[in-house]
Amino acid sequence: MNDESDIIAANTTFYAAFAAGDFAAMTRLWADDDRMSCIHPGWPPLIGRTAVMDSWRDIVQNPSRPRITCAEPYAIIDGDSGRVLCIEIVDGAALAATNAFRRIDGAWRLVHHQSSPIAQIIRQPQEDASDPTRRLH
Amino acid sequence: MNDESDIIAANTTFYAAFAAGDFAAMTRLWADDDRMSCIHPGWPPLIGRTAVMDSWRDIVQNPSRPRITCAEPYAIIDGDSGRVLCIEIVDGAALAATNAFRRIDGAWRLVHHQSSPIAQIIRQPQEDASDPTRRLH
Repeated sequence: MNDESDIIAANTTFYAAFAAGDFAAMTRLWADDDRMSCIHPGWPPLIGRTAVMDSWRDIVQNPSRPRITCAEPYAIIDGDSGRVLCIEIVDGAALAATNAFRRIDGAWRLVHHQSSPIAQIIRQPQEDASDPTRRLH
Repeated sequence: MNDESDIIAANTTFYAAFAAGDFAAMTRLWADDDRMSCIHPGWPPLIGRTAVMDSWRDIVQNPSRPRITCAEPYAIIDGDSGRVLCIEIVDGAALAATNAFRRIDGAWRLVHHQSSPIAQIIRQPQEDASDPTRRLH
């Protein structure tokens, strides 16, 4: 359970850094090497520390960045790798996010982020079977 | 380099199983335990083997599923964890996908998939700075 609370705390730190516009905190949270990736909503994959952190610098330091609230964080841990799945509420819209971490020197450091819009936040299983849009990949 | 070619091959197997409608192959490719997650385009996160594989059964066995072509696969490996970032071309639209794997008994098994629409596939850095839509998270 400590592992889970630690990685959830790291996830919270990520959203706090975003909310505060604190690029230094964001930089400390991400890993130090090039094995990182990021897919912002609507973006192609960014790969490597320079591309990923450059994107976060632009986003975090933009005074008109949206407010993001993280809801329903769920941790999945496998040794020194882990990820948190969560819902991001952004300007009233819901996005589904994955934040992947690697444990480095005892601390969970971000190595991957992907966030994508949710068409509907509340699933109704009975309707899923008859709704073809739910069946598309 | 063997690690990279192996995980790229596993990624190829994933898209081949999808194309063939081969749910058995898809099942073999995913890990056996509950530490798995999936975010289909427009969906909230699915967590655990039952939810994830039920979704793939519906999708893979649907004869009207779209064709998906995987392009530009890029592998990032850290020990027994790895992921492939790639572009999915689906009915002429581009999506950005992450397929995360865990090495189990020497084989890369899927533990996470997320795919999200790309607003534009070709980035023009000079325009990014003046385009506010590129600065939103």
